[in-house]
Amino acid sequence: MDRITAHYLIETPYDLADAAAVLAGEQSSGTFVSVPGETEELKKRFAARVENIEVLETVENPSIPGDVYNSEFKRAKVSVSWSIGNFQDNIPTLISTLQGNLYELRQFTGLKLDDFELPTWYEGKFKGPAFGAEDTKVLADVKPGRPMIGTIIKPSIGMSPEETAKLVKDLIEAGIDFIKDDELMTSSSNSPFKKRVELIMREVNHFQQKTGKKVMYAFNISGDLDTLKKNYDTILKHKGTCAILSINSVGWSGVKEIADRGQLSIHGHRNGWGMLNRHPLLGINFPAYAKLWRLAGVDQLHVNGIRNKFWESDESVIRSIKSCSTTFLDHKKLLPVVSSGQWGGQAFDTYKFTNTTDLLYMAGGGIMAHPSGPTGGVKALKQAWEGAVNGKTLEETAKEHKEFRESVEKFGGK
Amino acid sequence: MDRITAHYLIETPYDLADAAAVLAGEQSSGTFVSVPGETEELKKRFAARVENIEVLETVENPSIPGDVYNSEFKRAKVSVSWSIGNFQDNIPTLISTLQGNLYELRQFTGLKLDDFELPTWYEGKFKGPAFGAEDTKVLADVKPGRPMIGTIIKPSIGMSPEETAKLVKDLIEAGIDFIKDDELMTSSSNSPFKKRVELIMREVNHFQQKTGKKVMYAFNISGDLDTLKKNYDTILKHKGTCAILSINSVGWSGVKEIADRGQLSIHGHRNGWGMLNRHPLLGINFPAYAKLWRLAGVDQLHVNGIRNKFWESDESVIRSIKSCSTTFLDHKKLLPVVSSGQWGGQAFDTYKFTNTTDLLYMAGGGIMAHPSGPTGGVKALKQAWEGAVNGKTLEETAKEHKEFRESVEKFGGK
Repeated sequence: MDRITAHYLIETPYDLADAAAVLAGEQSSGTFVSVPGETEELKKRFAARVENIEVLETVENPSIPGDVYNSEFKRAKVSVSWSIGNFQDNIPTLISTLQGNLYELRQFTGLKLDDFELPTWYEGKFKGPAFGAEDTKVLADVKPGRPMIGTIIKPSIGMSPEETAKLVKDLIEAGIDFIKDDELMTSSSNSPFKKRVELIMREVNHFQQKTGKKVMYAFNISGDLDTLKKNYDTILKHKGTCAILSINSVGWSGVKEIADRGQLSIHGHRNGWGMLNRHPLLGINFPAYAKLWRLAGVDQLHVNGIRNKFWESDESVIRSIKSCSTTFLDHKKLLPVVSSGQWGGQAFDTYKFTNTTDLLYMAGGGIMAHPSGPTGGVKALKQAWEGAVNGKTLEETAKEHKEFRESVEKFGGK
Repeated sequence: MDRITAHYLIETPYDLADAAAVLAGEQSSGTFVSVPGETEELKKRFAARVENIEVLETVENPSIPGDVYNSEFKRAKVSVSWSIGNFQDNIPTLISTLQGNLYELRQFTGLKLDDFELPTWYEGKFKGPAFGAEDTKVLADVKPGRPMIGTIIKPSIGMSPEETAKLVKDLIEAGIDFIKDDELMTSSSNSPFKKRVELIMREVNHFQQKTGKKVMYAFNISGDLDTLKKNYDTILKHKGTCAILSINSVGWSGVKEIADRGQLSIHGHRNGWGMLNRHPLLGINFPAYAKLWRLAGVDQLHVNGIRNKFWESDESVIRSIKSCSTTFLDHKKLLPVVSSGQWGGQAFDTYKFTNTTDLLYMAGGGIMAHPSGPTGGVKALKQAWEGAVNGKTLEETAKEHKEFRESVEKFGGK
């Protein structure tokens, strides 16, 4: 029968083969003693199977608390497979299998899910991203050959719908492709969701009528199911094109329920990601994480950015961007959302290391605090990307373009 | 205005007050430069506020990767508050605020959400647990003064509905209060959900007709929203009383949608917990975690057990059990699900340290592998709890009761 294979990084004081067997056992029929009914034939059909162990380095100190009977902790890449018969097309149960109790096994002093593969049986079982990278750019009238340029409304909390709409108008006229609510902002006492949508979409739609360009505004609809549905409908009613979901906070089943409606591009905000990923040997890496959210139908997914203000390494960011465009079932590719401390300066390395413009490239302060205002900020970003795509250096691009030069002068020390 | 206060454990190479200010700033209006519109008055109304810093020890090595410009890493308990106006009754947005991007701040080499408090404004806004500890016990015809005794069907995967129902029949006749599906098992190729419910509930209902005792069987309904609803209805149709949700895999909004129906006691399985909690300075501790799930309406929540087979310390388990019965808004108390490597032997310490019988006390191998079979296993557990509640020691109880003595002989070395 078809099998799902998952790849883990592990660390253990035990013999690697024994530890891997414990992992497989826990995630199929684990209990602390053999029980009646657990026949060899059953085990063969339904048990998880250790497919591969690639030995890595040995370290002297455990990465996370666990059994420490030994003074050596071995690291390895371990691949484990399960029959799809165990969970069929039930993804929450797949998540519980790939990421469930095994993090609690004391036999491990480190365990991180790195990636997994689904067999072709899963094709056609999930809608996947309704828009993905390509159609999200089309939806925002962004031509191929450059990334979508986006920004975020700041301060995230405290502005009235009127003040926000005024700022949106300025940003639209500055030539932006994409604007988003903050992830901390859905409906506040000061900015009720409906009113905000109404006033912002009036600006977006007005600009579209005038110029043909439909700027994408991402409204944060996160909430319980009733809120999600009601807010989604509000966006549709006002001809919006995008909704933000805080995917870790809403959870897989809620996100899928909404994304499956397929009328808005879903901006997957991964706030909480640090909790799941920051420790090198605990949690989940982006390739596995992104696939779970592709199954739920997310179109856009945050990846941080080169030289971001957070802790994440450039290496991890680059790997994330690349994994958004890997082939996965019959699904559309994800649009990576590059953000956190970004301005045009990082465009050169971002393009150099990923060779793609299928990106939503977000700058907050990088646009709003530009010496020539938001218009200068957006221009500078477009100049940077044009330079990067045409193989020019930061210095050459700064020489050629005033707005980008100004941003180098202001943000270049970062 | 009313405020929500959250309590964190932090570790940082920076000055503690500066680091705490960064945390508060990121979770209200963070960007890397000041932006127009961010007035002092706005900040005052909507910004997060550092309420308290309690200095703890200083360590030489960072707990997780972050800025390491210093060779000293200070630890502290930090309390931060937000105006409820920022998110009102939107819990996913509260989660994003309490647990969002802040885990990514490089200024921290450790950050764990420990607990939070909601003002009375939240009373009446959420249904909370429909049954909670007390009414779940009533639903399973368990008298006050002893815990519910439960077990799990093993092997978790591979048995047919007919084989499972036969095992359920034996367990029911052995005197069990509660039986559950495994968290890895919803609908498999070998055990379709509907058929399993039908055959198992036939046994449960038949025993009830004969004796008046309704054993609680917890069916794992985890899945997307359609699956959750369909499976919930299947349980209702066959007069079941309980549903399992893998809460981390389904997510907050999906769980709330189902729990709010209020006709079944919701067994919250926290598989994946190790990922969120195992590192002492990353993630979330149980008091905060339990409150988030109480808001979603979960009735029963896993807490591991004393001397469990997993990594979790007894101290953490005891704290978890106690926090299930803390007062929280106008909600019913949670029923802690004690499990993992449990048999009667741990009843004495569990009662000694928590002084409660409002527990679901689960044993897998501890019942199924008892020398006198499941009947002996259930008897032994009840004897252990009776002894514990009456102030007897393990040794005294073993002397008095044959079945418990047998389990001490078999499992006592653990």
